Amino acid sequence: SSSDSLSLGIREQVYEVVEVKSNGMVSTRKINRRQLLKSSGLRPRDIRSVDPSLFMTNSMPSLLVREHAILLNLGTLRAIAMQERVLIFDYNRKGGKAFVDTLLSRLNPRSNNGGPCMPFEIEVVEAALLSRVQRLEQRLMDIEPRVQGLLEVLPNRLTGDVLEQLRISKQTLVELSSRAGALRQMLLDLLEDPHEIRRICIMGRNCTIRKGTDIVECSLSTEKQIAEEEEEEIEMLLENYLQRCESCHGQSERLLDSAKEMEDSIAVSLSSRRLEVSRVELLLQVGAFCVAVGALIAGIFGMNLRSYLEEHVFAFWLTTAGIIVGAVVAFFLMYSYLKARKIL
Amino acid sequence: SSSDSLSLGIREQVYEVVEVKSNGMVSTRKINRRQLLKSSGLRPRDIRSVDPSLFMTNSMPSLLVREHAILLNLGTLRAIAMQERVLIFDYNRKGGKAFVDTLLSRLNPRSNNGGPCMPFEIEVVEAALLSRVQRLEQRLMDIEPRVQGLLEVLPNRLTGDVLEQLRISKQTLVELSSRAGALRQMLLDLLEDPHEIRRICIMGRNCTIRKGTDIVECSLSTEKQIAEEEEEEIEMLLENYLQRCESCHGQSERLLDSAKEMEDSIAVSLSSRRLEVSRVELLLQVGAFCVAVGALIAGIFGMNLRSYLEEHVFAFWLTTAGIIVGAVVAFFLMYSYLKARKIL
Amino acid sequence: SSSDSLSLGIREQVYEVVEVKSNGMVSTRKINRRQLLKSSGLRPRDIRSVDPSLFMTNSMPSLLVREHAILLNLGTLRAIAMQERVLIFDYNRKGGKAFVDTLLSRLNPRSNNGGPCMPFEIEVVEAALLSRVQRLEQRLMDIEPRVQGLLEVLPNRLTGDVLEQLRISKQTLVELSSRAGALRQMLLDLLEDPHEIRRICIMGRNCTIRKGTDIVECSLSTEKQIAEEEEEEIEMLLENYLQRCESCHGQSERLLDSAKEMEDSIAVSLSSRRLEVSRVELLLQVGAFCVAVGALIAGIFGMNLRSYLEEHVFAFWLTTAGIIVGAVVAFFLMYSYLKARKIL
Amino acid sequence: SSSDSLSLGIREQVYEVVEVKSNGMVSTRKINRRQLLKSSGLRPRDIRSVDPSLFMTNSMPSLLVREHAILLNLGTLRAIAMQERVLIFDYNRKGGKAFVDTLLSRLNPRSNNGGPCMPFEIEVVEAALLSRVQRLEQRLMDIEPRVQGLLEVLPNRLTGDVLEQLRISKQTLVELSSRAGALRQMLLDLLEDPHEIRRICIMGRNCTIRKGTDIVECSLSTEKQIAEEEEEEIEMLLENYLQRCESCHGQSERLLDSAKEMEDSIAVSLSSRRLEVSRVELLLQVGAFCVAVGALIAGIFGMNLRSYLEEHVFAFWLTTAGIIVGAVVAFFLMYSYLKARKIL
Amino acid sequence: SSSDSLSLGIREQVYEVVEVKSNGMVSTRKINRRQLLKSSGLRPRDIRSVDPSLFMTNSMPSLLVREHAILLNLGTLRAIAMQERVLIFDYNRKGGKAFVDTLLSRLNPRSNNGGPCMPFEIEVVEAALLSRVQRLEQRLMDIEPRVQGLLEVLPNRLTGDVLEQLRISKQTLVELSSRAGALRQMLLDLLEDPHEIRRICIMGRNCTIRKGTDIVECSLSTEKQIAEEEEEEIEMLLENYLQRCESCHGQSERLLDSAKEMEDSIAVSLSSRRLEVSRVELLLQVGAFCVAVGALIAGIFGMNLRSYLEEHVFAFWLTTAGIIVGAVVAFFLMYSYLKARKIL
Repeated sequence: SSSDSLSLGIREQVYEVVEVKSNGMVSTRKINRRQLLKSSGLRPRDIRSVDPSLFMTNSMPSLLVREHAILLNLGTLRAIAMQERVLIFDYNRKGGKAFVDTLLSRLNPRSNNGGPCMPFEIEVVEAALLSRVQRLEQRLMDIEPRVQGLLEVLPNRLTGDVLEQLRISKQTLVELSSRAGALRQMLLDLLEDPHEIRRICIMGRNCTIRKGTDIVECSLSTEKQIAEEEEEEIEMLLENYLQRCESCHGQSERLLDSAKEMEDSIAVSLSSRRLEVSRVELLLQVGAFCVAVGALIAGIFGMNLRSYLEEHVFAFWLTTAGIIVGAVVAFFLMYSYLKARKIL
Repeated sequence: SSSDSLSLGIREQVYEVVEVKSNGMVSTRKINRRQLLKSSGLRPRDIRSVDPSLFMTNSMPSLLVREHAILLNLGTLRAIAMQERVLIFDYNRKGGKAFVDTLLSRLNPRSNNGGPCMPFEIEVVEAALLSRVQRLEQRLMDIEPRVQGLLEVLPNRLTGDVLEQLRISKQTLVELSSRAGALRQMLLDLLEDPHEIRRICIMGRNCTIRKGTDIVECSLSTEKQIAEEEEEEIEMLLENYLQRCESCHGQSERLLDSAKEMEDSIAVSLSSRRLEVSRVELLLQVGAFCVAVGALIAGIFGMNLRSYLEEHVFAFWLTTAGIIVGAVVAFFLMYSYLKARKIL
Repeated sequence: SSSDSLSLGIREQVYEVVEVKSNGMVSTRKINRRQLLKSSGLRPRDIRSVDPSLFMTNSMPSLLVREHAILLNLGTLRAIAMQERVLIFDYNRKGGKAFVDTLLSRLNPRSNNGGPCMPFEIEVVEAALLSRVQRLEQRLMDIEPRVQGLLEVLPNRLTGDVLEQLRISKQTLVELSSRAGALRQMLLDLLEDPHEIRRICIMGRNCTIRKGTDIVECSLSTEKQIAEEEEEEIEMLLENYLQRCESCHGQSERLLDSAKEMEDSIAVSLSSRRLEVSRVELLLQVGAFCVAVGALIAGIFGMNLRSYLEEHVFAFWLTTAGIIVGAVVAFFLMYSYLKARKIL
Repeated sequence: SSSDSLSLGIREQVYEVVEVKSNGMVSTRKINRRQLLKSSGLRPRDIRSVDPSLFMTNSMPSLLVREHAILLNLGTLRAIAMQERVLIFDYNRKGGKAFVDTLLSRLNPRSNNGGPCMPFEIEVVEAALLSRVQRLEQRLMDIEPRVQGLLEVLPNRLTGDVLEQLRISKQTLVELSSRAGALRQMLLDLLEDPHEIRRICIMGRNCTIRKGTDIVECSLSTEKQIAEEEEEEIEMLLENYLQRCESCHGQSERLLDSAKEMEDSIAVSLSSRRLEVSRVELLLQVGAFCVAVGALIAGIFGMNLRSYLEEHVFAFWLTTAGIIVGAVVAFFLMYSYLKARKIL
Repeated sequence: SSSDSLSLGIREQVYEVVEVKSNGMVSTRKINRRQLLKSSGLRPRDIRSVDPSLFMTNSMPSLLVREHAILLNLGTLRAIAMQERVLIFDYNRKGGKAFVDTLLSRLNPRSNNGGPCMPFEIEVVEAALLSRVQRLEQRLMDIEPRVQGLLEVLPNRLTGDVLEQLRISKQTLVELSSRAGALRQMLLDLLEDPHEIRRICIMGRNCTIRKGTDIVECSLSTEKQIAEEEEEEIEMLLENYLQRCESCHGQSERLLDSAKEMEDSIAVSLSSRRLEVSRVELLLQVGAFCVAVGALIAGIFGMNLRSYLEEHVFAFWLTTAGIIVGAVVAFFLMYSYLKARKIL
């Protein structure tokens, strides 16, 4: 039962993951939660941030560095990068697939002129960031011409369809901007925390970070130097993705702002046009009222009751003239009154 | 009387609390304010932040560390954690109950494979944060599908009921986002203040923090080392809850933004549809006006007055043709005028 | 003349103040500007921030520490705290009165179990903050149930009265939130500037702060220690009021957000209901137009002109049927046309 | 020609300035750009920030400290303060005039009890800030009662005139708030940059600031001490104007917020009143429709065609009763239908 | 095919660039990607930020300093500045052209009184910033009078054309403000990162920056001194453009705010005028309804049915009076009812 799985399942939870080894071998495995914790040296709490079943409560992108593993949570990509392999959860969703494709093409020795020069876990991080940023850029490039088109077409073609398209584009932009903003924030936080970057560098090396300081100590001085160079490399790599992310975020924010301003302007323009329509309606109603009064008078004389004017010569023409002149005069009186009060 | 209780009550105030001991024993007690101050080593001012009778003026979540106690104020949970016991005020409200449940299950040796490994007061802090964050996540998971459903249904079903549901969801999201944001801010403030975390660690140990610096001094060097490890542990624990909190906050903000954008778009769409309706109304009024003028003419000829045209052959047909042609011509003149002025 | 008072008045300005001594004695005095400057050791410029006649240009709360005096400007309370006495300007306004009441009850030895333990000027600062924060809290507690009530009642009772009450509540909340926010900012600025707090502590002691550093130097080492303990005490005191202030600010912001979201939702809901009304109106106008055309035809046949159909059998019934069927058919044609164009 | 003046004019540009000497002497001069650069030791680029012909692109207030001159750009005041004189550009605009008046009254020995005690360039800076802040305060004091009055009058008197006044006041407040905010930002930046303040102090002294540090080195130790005291003096002076500026900014923001909230509330209130009007209109249209159908029937019976009911007894009364009862019944049927659908 | 160019093109991509040498020589060249990387010492990743074919994903302005080159991306200007030459991509777009013009006029020895005194790459950076800022300023100066004109004209001439112009101006201002803001952010980031500026200075010198510190080490001490002076020069240069940028950004934000406030006010004013129109319409409908009821009665008496009142003396006059008096009385009853309910 469901409650059973809740109380017991936490311990026995089995994840179906794709494993990519550093030599490019891909395999689908089932991995036990306990086994996962043991092999990765992670704490139970850490797993939360990549567990795909908790996608509602770990929706913010994160990149957590632990002693022997890097936990990646970027959109629909959830992965744990270890020294020689990476485990990808939820591998059937877009994020996971794009990541595997990007990673494999990077691991392919032919495309890199003879093997990757960076350690495997950094390759993984770059592939993850690249696949994520590219998807954001792709979505932006899809939405951008559509919004631009709408903005040009809109002022002149205010139909429900076009407004509905604008609405949908706005919802997409809100989401895109929020996703790009979250990723940007994550990269900024990472870049502002040299400690974390240093921990990525010393992973898999015989180095430690001295407590309370940021000084790296390695058993081999060559390793230390390599780690330092790698650190600079990672920083530049992150800055590069940060810049792309910011462009993406800025562009989508700009489009969203334009769309919002457009909507505000449309609202005012619609209001103004409605007022115009209302004023003409009012004019017609003034006219119709005068005509109706005339018709009432005519109707009164049409009653089958004797007014003793029936046979008077000119009575018809006088009454008719009276009705028409009266209606016209009443109309112009009301018209000029409303004009004076600035209602018409 | 009320004024008496105001002047005297402050001194004699009695709180009804639930006490949970570190061995898992739960008891309900009445505790005198003076007694509470004495046993916890708190100042009168500190009690304010957890006093449930002041829920209006201490609504911001807070976690205050004093020498012998930690004051917890998280939503409807108000508690004082001491070395061997925790006092929970207002224990019948949701926050208090959830906290007791979480705490007891954590203290249960069976669920932890042989006793808690962390000091009691840290267990209390984690249980408090966990129960609070879980409740926020629960509320988010309740509201999320509802809002998504509304956003899909809305553009096509603009009924009052659906709009009212959107309104209620928005109010819930405003509150949820504000609560998650306040908790997030509290955790951020705590994480940025290592001094506070250090004070949690040395609680119940023979250690002191040297004045003006952040250096911990303990009588036993082993204690110092344990305290330092604990500090790291607490930081990771807080970061974990911070991340969950941020996901919660981000997700609710995103939903709220979507709902707001939706409302704005609906407003414009309604405006545009109203304009459409108004224009058709105007068209009809133009038509009705022309018909009314025709009817007036017909009415005039229907008066029981002599126009001396009564017996003329074709007078009827001529007049009728005149009325109809006149009405149609007038209609098209007005129509093309309004079309030219872009009103219709 | 006015220009005279401008050029001369500045020098001769006389303030009517209430003086409270540290022993609790209250007296009303007139004090010359020149005399005030001399006795307090303040500069002319400093007086500006507490001068009640400039309430427009010194509306931001401020707490300025000078060598021998603390200048307090909190809402309608303007006071200068010196070592043994405090001068309160504008003592008839709410802020001044509340402050005097709070201060006197604190100075009352009975209420403190034997005399204040803190120096007089700190008692003054605390009394000022306490009276200010309490007034904000009081206003919040007054407005909160009213707004909650409105938010519940509103969706169903959209009368002008209720909307007007919502408007007034919003204006109050805007003001309350802005005042609480300004006070919070002042407290934050103060807490981030340890220099200022240190200057409060050494006031009235034989201590100086060494130039360019933050090190306190006292002639007696005991004094230095007391000053340091006092500093910690003041920080905790300020933090306490900061927290109350933040709760107040947060709560009023939350209420204001709720009220704004409510207004936005109401606007959309009203728009949707107006569209509903407009559509029914349109339906009626379509009907009325058809009826009017029918009436025109009937009117035409009612003219006192000969159509030579007068004596035809069935002419009446055929015409009547034609009018009615025509009107109904025209109505349904127009109706289905508008339905197809999604206007109705 | 214009292009000539563009290519050559940059070099030969002549400014018409007012020169105020430290002894209070005022003279109007024409000064060549080259000559100005030479006498002030400024770079061509610096002049940009005070050049009145570029008012569009240097609209942000700025206070630039160079080795021998301070460049002042505060609203319409553009001036270069040097050791013994100040040059005021664009002296006919409000800002320039107010500055000259303020400066002269400060330089007047009588008003200062025997000569200015501060160096001339600091007197100039203070006069500039004072005249600027006073103008902002003056504008705030002008607008404040007007806005308060509007806010009280508005809910009950929603005429176009009052709305137009609210609009104008809002535009003024937007501008005022933006100007006060820009000045506040400038003062904040200045206060956060002790280096700049130090450079003001050593101007005209035999002191230098050591490269890369903030340590002042003077040939005479007394000069250094004076410079340090002056520095403190300038900081307090700037803080004073900062506070006035913040009050001004805060007050105008508060008024603007109130005005905006008022407008939002008015919009909702107008919407609700329009709905009310629309509903009564709808009611009338329902009634009118029923009456029109009745009139159609009456019109039909008024046709000059034979229905063979003409001579039936009671035909008239039955038809009349049928029309009236039918109209009333139809009205109530439609009314209750609309009521049930919550449209009326 | 397109897929071919995607897989191979990346390696073989050829850029058409304009090359400007430090002696002012301009030439158009085609440059291979691989060749470019080799000659400039850049990494493949760096090229992304200036590649004009990626204008969507590198729209944020950036100024990247690498060991032997500065990458410039400012709006439509994409360039790589090296020690003796600068390569301009996409040279036919506005940004590129303006840059070349500005750079050439700066390199022209006549305009600088004998050769540029600054190193070539700094001349390039200044020319790029100058041409970019000038274009922003130009656009602001174009739009500013138009918006001011609209703001003055609008309240009285609410035609569709004027609203459309306001809308277009707003869109332009949104874009302008966003561009100026992005450039400002870039300059701020650069100024806050002395490391980057230092790297500009040592470019082409025999200097290095010591790892982990900011200390410059040169083989010649004179070079170090020159580099330090240059650093100060660059900072002042950047501050100057930052100020112009901020003026531009502030001014466009202010105009945008004014335009938005104007739109909000117009919306409320339109709402209020529509309510006015609606109320007059309602009044007319009340009147028309009364007239219609009267007409119905008249119509009833006009039926060709016998009411046996036909020959009664005064029946006509009594009925007529009844109709008219009834209509007038009904009108006033309804009018006063609506007045009492505050609908009219």
